Amino acid sequence: MYPETLEKLISYLKHLPGVGEKTAQRYAFSLFKEDSSFIGELAKTLVDVKAKLRPCPCCGFISDEGRCVICDDITRDKTQIMIVSYDQDVIAMEKTGTYHGLYHVLGGVISSSKGIFPDDLNIYSLLGRLDGVKEVIIAISPTIDGETTALYIEKLLKDHDVLVTKIAHGLPMGASLDYADELTLIQALNNRREIKEG
Amino acid sequence: MYPETLEKLISYLKHLPGVGEKTAQRYAFSLFKEDSSFIGELAKTLVDVKAKLRPCPCCGFISDEGRCVICDDITRDKTQIMIVSYDQDVIAMEKTGTYHGLYHVLGGVISSSKGIFPDDLNIYSLLGRLDGVKEVIIAISPTIDGETTALYIEKLLKDHDVLVTKIAHGLPMGASLDYADELTLIQALNNRREIKEG
Repeated sequence: MYPETLEKLISYLKHLPGVGEKTAQRYAFSLFKEDSSFIGELAKTLVDVKAKLRPCPCCGFISDEGRCVICDDITRDKTQIMIVSYDQDVIAMEKTGTYHGLYHVLGGVISSSKGIFPDDLNIYSLLGRLDGVKEVIIAISPTIDGETTALYIEKLLKDHDVLVTKIAHGLPMGASLDYADELTLIQALNNRREIKEG
Repeated sequence: MYPETLEKLISYLKHLPGVGEKTAQRYAFSLFKEDSSFIGELAKTLVDVKAKLRPCPCCGFISDEGRCVICDDITRDKTQIMIVSYDQDVIAMEKTGTYHGLYHVLGGVISSSKGIFPDDLNIYSLLGRLDGVKEVIIAISPTIDGETTALYIEKLLKDHDVLVTKIAHGLPMGASLDYADELTLIQALNNRREIKEG
């Protein structure tokens, strides 16, 4: 019913995660109403993103020329590496402003149901980065696949002279205890700490 | 933190309706993971949509060359014109397969709060289309702005020799009476019809 070009745009927009027919239509019409100059810029940026960006050869974080800004930053603590699943996790962690070490971005998690195995991820290059590293912090979302991935990395690093830690799982700050799921409560209880009076 | 090109793409994607920072990031990464050929096609289609598509000079429905497919269809009933607010409404109505007349797409609704007045919409060209038309059906969403727009069009057509009707508002099919809002119930009650036994 729509002109062919518009139908094509709608079908392309449906590739976006969680976008179905209705949302794709809304997006297409909203794009149609933007200025020509905006659309030109958007189209150019899309092509640029694909052509210019590559994972950092060192840590795997997305980068536009060779090593990423974090690996290139000489003020970062090179004795710590934090392992995360996705680029977005780096940003989330950086926003806290409390971590100053390096990262290692896996690009996903091991998932036998989705056919993603260690070879498909940026895992083994980690072993080449352990020189001078004192601590590897595993910061992977505690889903079933995430836990599998964490376990795999733990085993991989077992024979290396490096401290392996994992970020704490427990009740989120501000969360209500009676709304938390059972697994989270069990983790929160198991990870309880002694309150030290100062 | 992200490479500049990616930040730019994220900021552009935030122009899409209802898309904030997090969703724009997800979209950007999902686009980054597509093939180069897909991205090239998407970029080209975006520019094409903007360059080629225009509102149909007759009814206002989006079209790629002159008059739209509906105005050009000689089998359509030229004695009926249905007034809708948006292009999407034409598609929704066409999907029912029960309406065979023409359309008139306003491109929005009158909204004093958003500064949209009759001059900003495709309203007055309707008067030039009334030759041979027997019925104008107003099919505008029954919001406050929608009702204002419907009323405006009713008044505009008052002195013309044409039957003006409005689609029925009432309880949606399959809806539960006790979940319906009061206005809908009032409309459903006011628009009640006699059950004719056949």
